[in-house]
Amino acid sequence: MATDRLRQQLDFLVEIDRLKHVERQTKVTGGSRRENTAEHSWHLAMYALILAEWSNDAVDIAHVIALCLVHDIVEIDAGDTFAYDVQANNDKAERERAAAERLFGLLPPDQARRFRSLWEEYEAMETAESRFANAVDRMQPAMLNHQAGDDSPWVHHCVTKPQMMKRLGPIGDGSETLWTHVQTIIDDVVNRGLVPPE
Amino acid sequence: MATDRLRQQLDFLVEIDRLKHVERQTKVTGGSRRENTAEHSWHLAMYALILAEWSNDAVDIAHVIALCLVHDIVEIDAGDTFAYDVQANNDKAERERAAAERLFGLLPPDQARRFRSLWEEYEAMETAESRFANAVDRMQPAMLNHQAGDDSPWVHHCVTKPQMMKRLGPIGDGSETLWTHVQTIIDDVVNRGLVPPE
Repeated sequence: MATDRLRQQLDFLVEIDRLKHVERQTKVTGGSRRENTAEHSWHLAMYALILAEWSNDAVDIAHVIALCLVHDIVEIDAGDTFAYDVQANNDKAERERAAAERLFGLLPPDQARRFRSLWEEYEAMETAESRFANAVDRMQPAMLNHQAGDDSPWVHHCVTKPQMMKRLGPIGDGSETLWTHVQTIIDDVVNRGLVPPE
Repeated sequence: MATDRLRQQLDFLVEIDRLKHVERQTKVTGGSRRENTAEHSWHLAMYALILAEWSNDAVDIAHVIALCLVHDIVEIDAGDTFAYDVQANNDKAERERAAAERLFGLLPPDQARRFRSLWEEYEAMETAESRFANAVDRMQPAMLNHQAGDDSPWVHHCVTKPQMMKRLGPIGDGSETLWTHVQTIIDDVVNRGLVPPE
C-alpha cells in the first residue's frame, strides 16, 4: 500500500494533469490549435536545456529546468493571463498566489515549501536562474508567434512595437545573445506591417 | 544576427514543436481527448521531480529529467508505438534510430552527440537514471489509464493481466515502492473485470 506521503504526491500528480487543459494565446506550429500550458512547459524546458550556454551569467541548469517545469502550474486555477492584457494582469498576482497555496498545498509539507519557493523565485527574477528561465519563457512564444505571421496573437490583439519591447526586453537580463535575436523578430514583424511601430 | 550555432539550435527547437501533434493511446484526465507526447514528457518530468526519493538507487535527478524530456522526441518521425502492439514494436527500434539520426542531427555536432546519447541511455536501461526514468514513463500512463476505467486503452485493446505484468514489471527495477503501488492498480482493474486475469 502507498504510504500517506506517496498518496499525497500521487494526488498532486493527478491534479496537475489539468494543466493540459489550460489554453494559451500562442498557436502550435501549423496553426491548427492553441498551445496548452503543459506542452508549453515541456518546450520551455527544452529551450533551457539547448540554449543554456547563452545565459549572461553561469546558471545551474537543473535549477533552471525545475523553474521552467513548475512556474506555470498555478494556471490550473488562475488561467493563462495574456501578457499584453493590462486589465487581466491587474489581479494576476493575487489569483496566482491563491492557486500556489492550494495546488502546492496538496504535496507533503517539505515539497509544498520547495515548489512554492520555486514559483516565488521565478516570479521575483532576482536569481541568475530565474532571469534565464524568464528569458526563454518570453522567447518561446515570440518564436511561435513569428511563425504564425498574420494569424499571430500580436496581430489579433493589435500589439504595438513599444508593447513588444517592454514585454520582451527582460530577455536581455537573462541573455544578451537571445535578446539580440528576438530584436530581429520584432524588426521583421514591424517591417512587414504586422505590428505598428508606435 | 544569430550565429550559425544559434541558428541550428533554434531550427531544432522549432522542429520539435511537432511533438505536440503526436498522439498517444492514453487519454488526459476527463477523457475528452488523447494525450500528446509533448505534454506527456512534461508530466513525466514532474513525476521524476516529485518521486525521485523512491528510486531504488541514488540518482542524479537533473540527468533523470533530461532523459524524460528528450527520450520521446524521436516520435516526431517514428510515431508513438502502443506498448502492447506486438507487430508495431517489431520495427520500432529501426524507425526510432533513423528518427534520432535526423532530428538530433539538426543540432550543432556536440549537442547532437549529447542528445543522441541521452536517447540511447534511456533505451538501454543500464544506468540507475534510465531505470528510474523508465519506471515513471511506465507508471504515468498506468495512472491515467486507471482513472479512465472502461474507456482505457487497456480495455479497448483487450490487454490481459500477464501482458500488463510484463510491460509494467520493469517499474520495480527503478523503484520497488512505485511498483508495489502499480500492482494495486493492476489488481483493481482485474478485480473490477476490466482486464482479464489470463
